Amino acid sequence: MNKKFDIIGIGNAIVDILARTDDDFLATENLIKGSMSLIDEQRAQHIYKVMRSTKIVSGGSAANTIVGATMLGARTGFIGKVRDDELGHIFVHDLNSIGVHYQTPLAQQGSATACCYVLVTPDGERTMNTYLGASQNLTEDDIDVNLISQTSIVYLEGYLWDPPQAKKAFLKAADCIHTQDGQVAFTLSDQFCVDRYRDEFCNLLKDQKIDILFANEHELKSLFATENINIALSEIQSLVSLAAITCSAEGSIIVTRETIEQCPVFPINELIDTTGAGDLFAAGFLTGLTKDMDLRDCARLGSIAAAEIIQHIGARPERDLKSMAQENGLLNL
Amino acid sequence: MNKKFDIIGIGNAIVDILARTDDDFLATENLIKGSMSLIDEQRAQHIYKVMRSTKIVSGGSAANTIVGATMLGARTGFIGKVRDDELGHIFVHDLNSIGVHYQTPLAQQGSATACCYVLVTPDGERTMNTYLGASQNLTEDDIDVNLISQTSIVYLEGYLWDPPQAKKAFLKAADCIHTQDGQVAFTLSDQFCVDRYRDEFCNLLKDQKIDILFANEHELKSLFATENINIALSEIQSLVSLAAITCSAEGSIIVTRETIEQCPVFPINELIDTTGAGDLFAAGFLTGLTKDMDLRDCARLGSIAAAEIIQHIGARPERDLKSMAQENGLLNL
Repeated sequence: MNKKFDIIGIGNAIVDILARTDDDFLATENLIKGSMSLIDEQRAQHIYKVMRSTKIVSGGSAANTIVGATMLGARTGFIGKVRDDELGHIFVHDLNSIGVHYQTPLAQQGSATACCYVLVTPDGERTMNTYLGASQNLTEDDIDVNLISQTSIVYLEGYLWDPPQAKKAFLKAADCIHTQDGQVAFTLSDQFCVDRYRDEFCNLLKDQKIDILFANEHELKSLFATENINIALSEIQSLVSLAAITCSAEGSIIVTRETIEQCPVFPINELIDTTGAGDLFAAGFLTGLTKDMDLRDCARLGSIAAAEIIQHIGARPERDLKSMAQENGLLNL
Repeated sequence: MNKKFDIIGIGNAIVDILARTDDDFLATENLIKGSMSLIDEQRAQHIYKVMRSTKIVSGGSAANTIVGATMLGARTGFIGKVRDDELGHIFVHDLNSIGVHYQTPLAQQGSATACCYVLVTPDGERTMNTYLGASQNLTEDDIDVNLISQTSIVYLEGYLWDPPQAKKAFLKAADCIHTQDGQVAFTLSDQFCVDRYRDEFCNLLKDQKIDILFANEHELKSLFATENINIALSEIQSLVSLAAITCSAEGSIIVTRETIEQCPVFPINELIDTTGAGDLFAAGFLTGLTKDMDLRDCARLGSIAAAEIIQHIGARPERDLKSMAQENGLLNL
């Protein structure tokens, strides 16, 4: 692939506000562990007030993936909407400072920059409450077709189905890259997100809008409304040419038209916070694809990036991902 | 000790903005690794612009200590000044949310809340650039004598010597607690801070304003303008009844009038960021003192808290410090 950019992410532009909590707190606040809930500003204020000491780290699912891919050496860009405010400036700074091409105009009025209140329980699981704010205002006009046409893979998040106008932006980007011999990668994002848009997501697959699918096992089972992972795997095999299914501590399953293959996790010292695990797996996997690595090595690169992110609070890497990969025999060219 | 509060910290109220960097960057920016430099707003803007993707975590040396002590079960409070702005609200939220008594009035005008740009190199060392902002405006009037009189130990940071008016606040608090059978603990903070105020710090010790001294080996040597640690230890032994000297990976040295004793570090998996190591050692040590633990166990509790903080980015704990202590046979009552 000889284009200017390897991967462009399109997603909600969100700053994460993370705190440790416990199961009792989730119960008191009626929160479902591991899920992502959409909240309004009033609820956001309440959650912040009752949550403990915070850490503020730029986030957003596709943005996390793009940052990870950049650190692994991919040439990347991002499209997503923030407001011209304090959190917005932090988000812009963080993407630009590591070399992501990011030029979506900042909203000068309207809702504040999106933020996600992430509650991390002692088991390392994260429960997310997202105030979509300015990220809702991403429209077709923000899709730079010139940028997309210079790109090998466009990576889109299922969460884009929540802001009403973003679907059109999604479809515009997908159609554009398909006319340019590029590929569309898509993540199902969250099992409740799949619940909200099951038919639409299935139609995207049937209409061949998606070339590479990312999901965890819960999301995949939700997509086909089955409790049986083997049925779900067989369904997805018939619908898409490549799928990477993550199964937490059980590793991942890589599905092609011909094969269904189990890949192991990368060992860790201690699980601290799963926020961003799927995002960083996708970062490694996609980077591997753009470097023509075989699929097992793509999964291995994904699992190394995911292993880094779950050993600290927040979904942006704290260690040098490229060095980690190189120490494990990958990306040494 | 039968007072309402175990430890009240008085210090600069600062929000940390942390990023990974490398040695070349420090050289380009003329920064001395491991030091704390005071910067103005213009320099702050420059540093932020050139630093990489950030993590925002409440900080401040004495505040970090107080948070650690609170997590270990001490009854605590904090006195320090922020502005009524976004970073100020984050600082207030973070202290209140973990149960620190903190009621210093927010400044309604003047400089913004203090922030510290922390640059973390691959060796885990941190280099700090502090914009003092609103924290400079701490005055005697902010010292609540009623609060101090209900407290066993007041903990003060050497950095308080930088904001001109804060010295008076410091001395007011020290004099107040000494009339109430309480103790003054003091940290030398930074070797360049010691350079700036060597004579004044020595006079504080000679005048018996300080009962418990915290320092690392560099700060202690700087205080007595010697390269010989044994000379420095012998000097401090003659000046204060208890000193805890941290020596990075070499552990700590506990100095009383009668003894000088080496204590080991607590083992870690990987050094990520030393920001807050000294602050958290003090948290454990002071908490141990207020629980009448013997000095070796105080040092051990300090080393457990320090071990937690250096294994991730930022100076506020991510793990449950109390559980860590209990798993190692401390704080089990």
